[in-house]
Amino acid sequence: MAVYTEVTDEALSAFLAGYDLGPVSSFKGIAEGVENSNFLVITTKGPYILTLYEKRVNEGDLPFFIGLMEHLALRGVTCPQPVRARNGEALGRLVGRSAAIVTFLDGLWLRRPRAEHCGQVGEALARMHEAGADFAIRRPNALSIDGWPLLYAAAEARADEVSPGLARETAGEIDALSEIWPANLPSGVIHADLFPDNVFFLGDRLSGLIDFYFACDDFFAYDLGVCLNAWCFEPDGDFNVSKGMAMIEGYQRVRRLTSGEVEALPVLARGSALRFMLTRLVDWLNVPSGAMVAPKNPLEYRAKLRFHQRVVSAIDYGWRA
Amino acid sequence: MAVYTEVTDEALSAFLAGYDLGPVSSFKGIAEGVENSNFLVITTKGPYILTLYEKRVNEGDLPFFIGLMEHLALRGVTCPQPVRARNGEALGRLVGRSAAIVTFLDGLWLRRPRAEHCGQVGEALARMHEAGADFAIRRPNALSIDGWPLLYAAAEARADEVSPGLARETAGEIDALSEIWPANLPSGVIHADLFPDNVFFLGDRLSGLIDFYFACDDFFAYDLGVCLNAWCFEPDGDFNVSKGMAMIEGYQRVRRLTSGEVEALPVLARGSALRFMLTRLVDWLNVPSGAMVAPKNPLEYRAKLRFHQRVVSAIDYGWRA
Repeated sequence: MAVYTEVTDEALSAFLAGYDLGPVSSFKGIAEGVENSNFLVITTKGPYILTLYEKRVNEGDLPFFIGLMEHLALRGVTCPQPVRARNGEALGRLVGRSAAIVTFLDGLWLRRPRAEHCGQVGEALARMHEAGADFAIRRPNALSIDGWPLLYAAAEARADEVSPGLARETAGEIDALSEIWPANLPSGVIHADLFPDNVFFLGDRLSGLIDFYFACDDFFAYDLGVCLNAWCFEPDGDFNVSKGMAMIEGYQRVRRLTSGEVEALPVLARGSALRFMLTRLVDWLNVPSGAMVAPKNPLEYRAKLRFHQRVVSAIDYGWRA
Repeated sequence: MAVYTEVTDEALSAFLAGYDLGPVSSFKGIAEGVENSNFLVITTKGPYILTLYEKRVNEGDLPFFIGLMEHLALRGVTCPQPVRARNGEALGRLVGRSAAIVTFLDGLWLRRPRAEHCGQVGEALARMHEAGADFAIRRPNALSIDGWPLLYAAAEARADEVSPGLARETAGEIDALSEIWPANLPSGVIHADLFPDNVFFLGDRLSGLIDFYFACDDFFAYDLGVCLNAWCFEPDGDFNVSKGMAMIEGYQRVRRLTSGEVEALPVLARGSALRFMLTRLVDWLNVPSGAMVAPKNPLEYRAKLRFHQRVVSAIDYGWRA
């Protein structure tokens, strides 16, 4: 969510003419997120979000994302709903890109979440896992263990510009994780990117989830690992076990972790830290000129990775039997 | 208008508690403009814009800007209105910066304005000049002829990195303009930055002006020169005299240019092109890390500057007696 693409007046008018949304009274780029171009569009029917899918999103995956949002909403997960054009399609073309209009979700994302919020996030994550159970389309996780060597190859030559020794450390970590990566854990549709800026709250109550553009099939507990990384570390790098405990408890209020998942949690959290370190590293080394977005520091995730390497068991994250 | 500053949840709540706007249901950074951090804030009373004033805005100037928006609106210029907090103040403090909430203005800015739009802009500019006549606060234009040597000094050493010979050309231009810069032209409050992204339209009708944070006292015709630069060149660099004609005609429907202004217009347009070349050059050489904004290319304004150097009279811009 950022703005990479300029939408001309004529193109916008032509695009909106395909919808029953009435005349547009406001159109503003939104300065959040990193993957796509997002705009607030206000029409006589209210506010909407217009998303232009940029290059990192594979066009072939769009029916998965759009279908998933519709599927989850029907099962009670509050998330943006694709708006269909008069021709029945939720996906259109705008300035050479795939584009969709989705409903506007009330709420604010929390800059400084507390443990009580982490508990609600865990609960919402588990509800999403359950709601996705009968979703028909499959999408492998291209950013999990099979995808890391490719990401590494894209960053290897210049990784040490970011921090001396980073290339070697990353290669070693990929090797180490490939030895101990679990198999046969409960899996299904995961969000895979449920960071604080993708969870809205109204006051202290979780009001919805957004940005399903990394959603895919993978281990449910890997998704919990993503959330532990994204929500439970303090700005100074310390892991806050009260937040971890609240998050895991929240998750288990809806869906109990199996013993295999509990055992694998440290490896999965470590792998998800590596995933974000790798993608941030590639982005850091390839900031597109003209992008209205600042790349995120990959070293934040190297620090988290090192933390997970020292974790003994899920108890260190706050899991309790 | 961009996002340079992160607003924490607690800080936002504390700030909004000082206003009678009700609970907030949405808060999003806006990816437009370059000077301040801007956020869309939706409360039960509707949408508002929250602006955090960043370092380039002098705190001492804020009463001028805030007062000017109130003054102009009272005289029929549609522009954002500062919302006063319960303590009666329109300016507050938020995360260490001055901050203000203004009303949300309906409309879209035009990515590809046509001559008819330029005519309305000229008219609105003249109305603003007339409406500002009895505004009490004065603010000299720090980015006009007296300010250029300072800007040049900030860019001189590295200007040739942008284009070989640029430093020498710029120095020569400052000297040349200081010889021929006019005096004693009609003056008053000018917008000084009325680019397309600062003018909103609903359909093809101008609906309002925004972003008064460069407003100051200077020659009215200098402001017209800014608009000729900002609206009447095509993306390929050509000057579109139909747009220029429409703009000048529109202006004169409200306020007739004096013969002195007509004569000075080429020098003033040339000076305003230099002003934007200089500030863009300084920005280009000093992109703040973490800014979610792409610097604008100074060379676009060198090309405009060179065009103005070859202009013989206001007739070349479309002025007709």
